[in-house]
Amino acid sequence: MAEGEPDVVPDDGLTTRQRRHRPLLMINTGEGKGKSTAAFGTAMRGWNQGWSIAVFQFVKSAKWRVGEQAVLETLGQLHNETGQGGDVEWHRMGAGWSWSRKKGTEDDHAAQASEGWQEIKRRLAAEAHDLYVLDEFTYPITWGWIEVDEVISALTNRPGHQHVIITGRGAHPALLDVADLVTEMTMIKHPFQSGQKGQRGIEW
Amino acid sequence: MAEGEPDVVPDDGLTTRQRRHRPLLMINTGEGKGKSTAAFGTAMRGWNQGWSIAVFQFVKSAKWRVGEQAVLETLGQLHNETGQGGDVEWHRMGAGWSWSRKKGTEDDHAAQASEGWQEIKRRLAAEAHDLYVLDEFTYPITWGWIEVDEVISALTNRPGHQHVIITGRGAHPALLDVADLVTEMTMIKHPFQSGQKGQRGIEW
Repeated sequence: MAEGEPDVVPDDGLTTRQRRHRPLLMINTGEGKGKSTAAFGTAMRGWNQGWSIAVFQFVKSAKWRVGEQAVLETLGQLHNETGQGGDVEWHRMGAGWSWSRKKGTEDDHAAQASEGWQEIKRRLAAEAHDLYVLDEFTYPITWGWIEVDEVISALTNRPGHQHVIITGRGAHPALLDVADLVTEMTMIKHPFQSGQKGQRGIEW
Repeated sequence: MAEGEPDVVPDDGLTTRQRRHRPLLMINTGEGKGKSTAAFGTAMRGWNQGWSIAVFQFVKSAKWRVGEQAVLETLGQLHNETGQGGDVEWHRMGAGWSWSRKKGTEDDHAAQASEGWQEIKRRLAAEAHDLYVLDEFTYPITWGWIEVDEVISALTNRPGHQHVIITGRGAHPALLDVADLVTEMTMIKHPFQSGQKGQRGIEW
């Protein structure tokens, strides 16, 4: 098919314009690299469209995404100073979320993940952002810290026009079912296999 | 395995530090989305490390990457003004390459692609950049416009420490053989299948 052209025109009573502007739930999953990097690339593109971008990082270690965070925060700052692009918020789970006064400990990741999700639900209900990147969000679901049914309900009923990207390995099948776009990244060949360690700029 | 830890330590006489800093040839291929987006995400991360970034877009239509181009050029400009990050060049095949005085026509894509590749070879020999993104570069190889053996020779013999990312469907097997990192993006579910058209910020 030609790029940008649909295979079929669905009988859903929507105009092309309405379909074109449908908010998307996107999932980048699989064992390969590029899941988060592609999501942050989409965020970069959204910034250029003037979107309000919010990133929620559901990982302990902040090391791996420090480059993307620095760049997206630089773009957010540029927006604040010049009006170019959109605003950017970057929140990460670590010792408590940045909006929270209470500092977490190493032991309460489940509680922190749940707290992060509650905040995302509030923001979705308030239509706070145009694009949400829920980075590594598959894991707290897999580990039972966040109920997949609750996630599906909140995402499928989200109001307005809010795009959501979820990244992480092993996305729950029920989540894949309700997604609009699912991409699986498969590792065919990796330098770690031949004794290469992660390196600056490539891995973080 | 723990992230960042190699499976085996190879008997190649290199120190860990030498291996860590080995320049990488990366290929993002497959039928799915995210090949280019992940590459531009890596470029964004490299920019943050102060790398000199050069993008060569081997596609006719410039529509699809306009967001990434705008953002990376914004970052390049920021570098020129403030010294933050690295410098960025973005070249695309269209009506001739930007460094070329002669304007191309719709008919000489093969010649243009070849001209682009000659320029890349010159820059690799001169160690002009830290990261080269050869976007959609698999196609001119597939179409026979650029010889895969010549590409492999130039890439495997490139001097210094220059990373290269190639994107596009159907990467040539001989190219995969010499790559350090190959990721295949597979489309599991796509909104175009249910009648959705491409939309701003998501597709371009």
